[in-house]
Amino acid sequence: MANSPSGDSVTGRLVRVLETFTPTRTVQTPAEIGRRAGLPSSTAHRVVADLVAAGLLDRDGEGRVSVGLRLWELATRSSLALRVRQAALPAMERVQARVREHTQLAILEQDEALFLERLSDPDAGANITRIAGRLPLHASSSGLVLLAFGDHELQERVLTQQLRRLTAMTPTDPAVVRRKLAEVRRLGHAIAPGSIEEVSTGVAVPVLDRAGRATAALSVVLPRDAATGVALDALHRAAHEVERALTRDS
Amino acid sequence: MANSPSGDSVTGRLVRVLETFTPTRTVQTPAEIGRRAGLPSSTAHRVVADLVAAGLLDRDGEGRVSVGLRLWELATRSSLALRVRQAALPAMERVQARVREHTQLAILEQDEALFLERLSDPDAGANITRIAGRLPLHASSSGLVLLAFGDHELQERVLTQQLRRLTAMTPTDPAVVRRKLAEVRRLGHAIAPGSIEEVSTGVAVPVLDRAGRATAALSVVLPRDAATGVALDALHRAAHEVERALTRDS
Repeated sequence: MANSPSGDSVTGRLVRVLETFTPTRTVQTPAEIGRRAGLPSSTAHRVVADLVAAGLLDRDGEGRVSVGLRLWELATRSSLALRVRQAALPAMERVQARVREHTQLAILEQDEALFLERLSDPDAGANITRIAGRLPLHASSSGLVLLAFGDHELQERVLTQQLRRLTAMTPTDPAVVRRKLAEVRRLGHAIAPGSIEEVSTGVAVPVLDRAGRATAALSVVLPRDAATGVALDALHRAAHEVERALTRDS
Repeated sequence: MANSPSGDSVTGRLVRVLETFTPTRTVQTPAEIGRRAGLPSSTAHRVVADLVAAGLLDRDGEGRVSVGLRLWELATRSSLALRVRQAALPAMERVQARVREHTQLAILEQDEALFLERLSDPDAGANITRIAGRLPLHASSSGLVLLAFGDHELQERVLTQQLRRLTAMTPTDPAVVRRKLAEVRRLGHAIAPGSIEEVSTGVAVPVLDRAGRATAALSVVLPRDAATGVALDALHRAAHEVERALTRDS
């Protein structure tokens, strides 16, 4: 599936409008939306008016619009993301209480790591991750475990594309990533120093299904040169808890 | 705004399709969706196909569909709900650690209490609330604080409608609810014994903005006859923390 399903269907246009909203761009005018979505101004105004009428966008006193709670409600109340996240939250809280650094949950979505949850300590360091944000599979510790414990077709698809460099430490040579994936499978965890942000090291473990495939990745973000032992122990315990919770649910 | 914006626009039909998905009905056939959305079968099939093509619904091997992660991602990454919820989560965790019962965050949405978050103790008792679920304002402790610290128009609108009875303890006489709201304003919290479920008592406090209006309600669900003192103390401290966090952010 394409990352930005465009198409000229009404639904496609509607998605293009919603895609113009980001964590740092939460309020826009219809004209700005039209420009960013590549839609004629009249079309953008009409789609925005429809979305406002349906309660999916909220319009403020100055005519600017933002994503409404109704959309969040419709998306959340029956979603898989919520089930995985609820199953994982108690275990994540224990990791966070012990490690006191950003603790994260990611799943595979459209060949990227999509972050469902992040618990942060007020004293924790830098972290680029946002809830509902994405990171490339080859660069993040979460992505590496999703890839290493994912299916063969996924690995081939990802490794035959251009591997984006985020920092000087991001592995971009497919052969290097392949060796890394073999190591992740052997060790049962991934350590990714500096490959997302120079100052941080990501540490991740998979949450496995009965077939040994990763359904999710649990991770913490440590300062670059911190010891990883305590975090790894906490993450492995948490992953087993989540695996049990998901098996009990299903 | 109506609860189910229908309308015959494409966006309206799309919302009607999404509204057929609930926490207990996460997978449906297009025919079931059409019946539940009140749409002709051919229309339902076309809207579902559009939504699948846009990545907002996922189709499984048997042709049944579920709400896709893409919709959750679009709804979540730029939403107000997420900002309030991230500001409240650390304080909610402290309440939950101390009280060890369901700890909840609700905001006002379309004249109901919409629950953004719930933290649950494995040993906590019954609780009807779901994340992205709603409860009537007059019946739930969260709703009572949102109403008591809400604007006058909201109160008149809610109190001049039929007040739905959920249990024998739900107040349905507008005069009784008015007295209750005055009490909630005086005390700074709401206690609602048995009005949502016979076996439980809800206890809620408002998170106030600078003008003294409720932006959210923090609540815990206790066994019906439990003492409320510890929960109230924990909730008041948490509300002040969240108020400070939201003020700092804005």
